[in-house]
Amino acid sequence: MRNDNNKITGKIYGIGIGPGEYKLLTLKAVETLKRVKTVFAPKPSNEGTSFARSIIKSIGLRKKRYVELPFPMIKDRNKLMKYWLDAGKKIAKEVKLNGETAFITIGDPFIYSTYIYLYETIKRNHPLIKMETIPGISSINASACAAGIPLLKGKEKLAVVPAMESADAIRKTLKEFDTIVIMKVGSRFSKVVAVLAEMNLLSNSVMISRAGCPDEKIIQDLSSLKDAKQAYLSVIIVRKNK
Amino acid sequence: MRNDNNKITGKIYGIGIGPGEYKLLTLKAVETLKRVKTVFAPKPSNEGTSFARSIIKSIGLRKKRYVELPFPMIKDRNKLMKYWLDAGKKIAKEVKLNGETAFITIGDPFIYSTYIYLYETIKRNHPLIKMETIPGISSINASACAAGIPLLKGKEKLAVVPAMESADAIRKTLKEFDTIVIMKVGSRFSKVVAVLAEMNLLSNSVMISRAGCPDEKIIQDLSSLKDAKQAYLSVIIVRKNK
Repeated sequence: MRNDNNKITGKIYGIGIGPGEYKLLTLKAVETLKRVKTVFAPKPSNEGTSFARSIIKSIGLRKKRYVELPFPMIKDRNKLMKYWLDAGKKIAKEVKLNGETAFITIGDPFIYSTYIYLYETIKRNHPLIKMETIPGISSINASACAAGIPLLKGKEKLAVVPAMESADAIRKTLKEFDTIVIMKVGSRFSKVVAVLAEMNLLSNSVMISRAGCPDEKIIQDLSSLKDAKQAYLSVIIVRKNK
Repeated sequence: MRNDNNKITGKIYGIGIGPGEYKLLTLKAVETLKRVKTVFAPKPSNEGTSFARSIIKSIGLRKKRYVELPFPMIKDRNKLMKYWLDAGKKIAKEVKLNGETAFITIGDPFIYSTYIYLYETIKRNHPLIKMETIPGISSINASACAAGIPLLKGKEKLAVVPAMESADAIRKTLKEFDTIVIMKVGSRFSKVVAVLAEMNLLSNSVMISRAGCPDEKIIQDLSSLKDAKQAYLSVIIVRKNK
């Protein structure tokens, strides 16, 4: 039996919905969400709920069908691939039915999101479906604005690195760049703080937790933080020229 | 005579309005613009017009007072300082009168914008005025989404550098990072392309001009570009893992 899935035409909108406050959605995101019949949203497990979906609740979309798709927080790419393939198929089926549909994602779609894998999977398996990615406010920009820390000024350069980089690699980046954004801090908080302390950069560093959300926290004194749990969903910005 | 300017209280909103299409403004940006009486907008010279102001025209704000402030494209910081001081005074005067006001800026307020200098000037000279910076979609995110190039995936790291960096410095960054965004390309286009060619990265590079605008251009083959004029207001994204 031939598989005709790769002949489906239509359009998928990958929509960045910002860091967690519905007012940080763009007009284009809202307009697109109003137009499509079905909105797909990621969730961390079959039982879990979708943070992305909870954010857009406040827009007041009417007569909308929501489909939450599980993307577990596991590292095995082969197992994950199954979820991307399944999600791709479900979304393509909706496109076949209605011509277009939307997938929402926290922050900006092309910064550390599950959407990237989904985007690549759909591009590969459903080459005739158009994909339009609508940019969103990333936690990087929201955090910098919330804390009042410029990211790039004049001739400066910026690095964005994940906290799982080795202490050596982080040290090197801190030496070479003017502003450094450290993402995915979480349980690696102590390691990062140790490197910053050693390089005398603690007073140049600020941790921003859930920027742009009602429960946003800005921690100026990183050494004061005893409980690394607060580092979940947090960004550390190090700016050398204060 | 005492100067009481530094006793003014109230609030200034620094509003990122995105890369050039009004639909990429956030709901928060629009809501804030609707509320304030006066909107300040930057322009490149006394005679010039404000690109930022032209973008928000399509929102249809009513009964709004616009004040365009000149920030010439010069490099002499002492001369520029005069413009920042003047602008700061005018904006503070408006705050004194109406309690709050807004300044709009292209892209994200904290990425290569005049707003950063204005923000620092006002913080210094009018310490009692609150400043809230509303993040905007930067040309970095808009360009990546337009070209379908992920910025950060998994454990990757990203660098954003201005094209005026030396060829050596650009080479080094290209070696060490997964994705590299080269900003302020303009007249430095040939230099950048030479480095990319030498490192066999031309096929990993895309130039995006005026991302998110109606006249957006995506140039996949950088070596095809004869006229560097197109490189004005452009971003080059180099992604090593295709």
